[in-house]
Amino acid sequence: MNITLEQAAQLIKSHDNFRILLHRFPDGDTIGCGYSLCAALQSLGKKAVVMCSDKVSGRFGFITGIVQEQQFEPQYTVSVDVADSKLLGELNELYGDKVDLCIDHHPSNSGFAKNTFVDADASAACEIVYKLIGLIGAQVTADIAAALYTGIATDTGCFKFSNTTANTHIIAAELIKKGIDYAEINRVMFDTKSKSRVLVERRALDSVEFHCDDKIAIMTVSRSMIDEAGADDSELDGITSLPRQIEGVIIGITLREMRNGKFKVSVRTHAPISASELCSNFGGGGHERAAGCQIDDTYENAKQQLLKAAEDMLCANKAE
Amino acid sequence: MNITLEQAAQLIKSHDNFRILLHRFPDGDTIGCGYSLCAALQSLGKKAVVMCSDKVSGRFGFITGIVQEQQFEPQYTVSVDVADSKLLGELNELYGDKVDLCIDHHPSNSGFAKNTFVDADASAACEIVYKLIGLIGAQVTADIAAALYTGIATDTGCFKFSNTTANTHIIAAELIKKGIDYAEINRVMFDTKSKSRVLVERRALDSVEFHCDDKIAIMTVSRSMIDEAGADDSELDGITSLPRQIEGVIIGITLREMRNGKFKVSVRTHAPISASELCSNFGGGGHERAAGCQIDDTYENAKQQLLKAAEDMLCANKAE
Repeated sequence: MNITLEQAAQLIKSHDNFRILLHRFPDGDTIGCGYSLCAALQSLGKKAVVMCSDKVSGRFGFITGIVQEQQFEPQYTVSVDVADSKLLGELNELYGDKVDLCIDHHPSNSGFAKNTFVDADASAACEIVYKLIGLIGAQVTADIAAALYTGIATDTGCFKFSNTTANTHIIAAELIKKGIDYAEINRVMFDTKSKSRVLVERRALDSVEFHCDDKIAIMTVSRSMIDEAGADDSELDGITSLPRQIEGVIIGITLREMRNGKFKVSVRTHAPISASELCSNFGGGGHERAAGCQIDDTYENAKQQLLKAAEDMLCANKAE
Repeated sequence: MNITLEQAAQLIKSHDNFRILLHRFPDGDTIGCGYSLCAALQSLGKKAVVMCSDKVSGRFGFITGIVQEQQFEPQYTVSVDVADSKLLGELNELYGDKVDLCIDHHPSNSGFAKNTFVDADASAACEIVYKLIGLIGAQVTADIAAALYTGIATDTGCFKFSNTTANTHIIAAELIKKGIDYAEINRVMFDTKSKSRVLVERRALDSVEFHCDDKIAIMTVSRSMIDEAGADDSELDGITSLPRQIEGVIIGITLREMRNGKFKVSVRTHAPISASELCSNFGGGGHERAAGCQIDDTYENAKQQLLKAAEDMLCANKAE
């Protein structure tokens, strides 16, 4: 059932002993939501615990440290930033059909919970939780503000992306007034790379080939690059954005070798080229500017097929 | 003479035929200030022209295009984001001692103008010009908002750095409400690199050496890297931040070969290491976290001396 945020606040106020569920592969937004809500509930004398199927990265330690460990039997389950019960990972089996309240900002939310509040205009679920904490009568402390700011900053690329709204900035202003060290948060979130990530990145950049007057850039991330750098796949987030960042490039393609030797293809484009249309040639899909597919062929063949398809799209576009 | 912003607005309202001066090597802030003020003055039926000693990069074309070319003899000179008349570059000789009104946010402003308004709490001079445009009774159109947003975003690293305030976010919210394409502005300003920059970056990353348990990273940008990539020095802005971005690195050092074969050294540190103290060993200086010096020695000798000094500082720090 879809409910209002005021109704969600009422449900929270009338319950105790909370289990707060994050989505698998937890990011800044789900972490910021979960721990800030948990800390707010605890500040009201309630009991609450945050649970996630996957380990929360150590760089979020300043957020996970804001809650108390409490001994209790959870009775009321809330999910934050979770669009579908499948995204609970291993916790899906245990709690996927027992979520009492779902707080989310994904328009694709599947309505898996008993009660659901979705605000698709919120840049991050943390925007919603910020309001919710006010509605349940808890204080937004500096610790809670830092957690919420982190979620908003990471989901918007530090206010860079088109999901940022005027309201996002207004909430950021209110959170900053709580006295958080946002510059340090942003340094950790945006200006810090692991050494192994840097090693992969420099070899991947070495592999970039330009075609069609530099309008197409193809980058390769091979298994040996990843393994020799000692990186794990979770460290490669966003590496696919590198080719399209190069001035003049309209189609940026990344071929990433998987453990089974096959290639996962990520395509990033600028207008007017459709990334999803390009990937649909290979049974893949996605969004207008970011899409993916998989090609079960040798590296050379996969590259030639992609290049041919990309060139055709550039030419067709010129002809129109 | 220091004046209030209201007095500055009064001066502007009571004059006409404006010459608006930017600082040399113009950045997003001075460009955003100059063109938005010029467009605002023109919208009030006044005549105004923007002048700069150096060419404005083409990527700011969406800003420089918002003003009209007008035939007139300038009578009143305003400088924006200019801390000292020397920073007017070649225009200093002509107008350096004739600036009637200086609008700036640098605490170090030398007071070179007849009337000066400095707000050192403003993250960007564009924050001040935003208020000024309201005070002179002009509308903040979408074009003007885009120019002002660009100045604020570029001076704050897209709201990432510590100079960002709650007020910065509130102004950003107001500018976004004017209907600007901030996502596209941010893409051009932050997520676009020239091909030659990428070529230099990948060779520079190849050169990174780690020392002292990866606490020190030294990167080299040689003349051949720059020349072979076809880059010019203006494309290398910010490249010195790469070594310190690597997780665990406390001292990031960049050795950049100049045209005369000598090495310009940039040091970036994390607390508690002082970059300016490290550089002072070599006659240089700067800020706590970012400093520079020059070493007149061979590449190998320069590197060894820097490494020795950096290691000494790390050890001294451990001993404390």
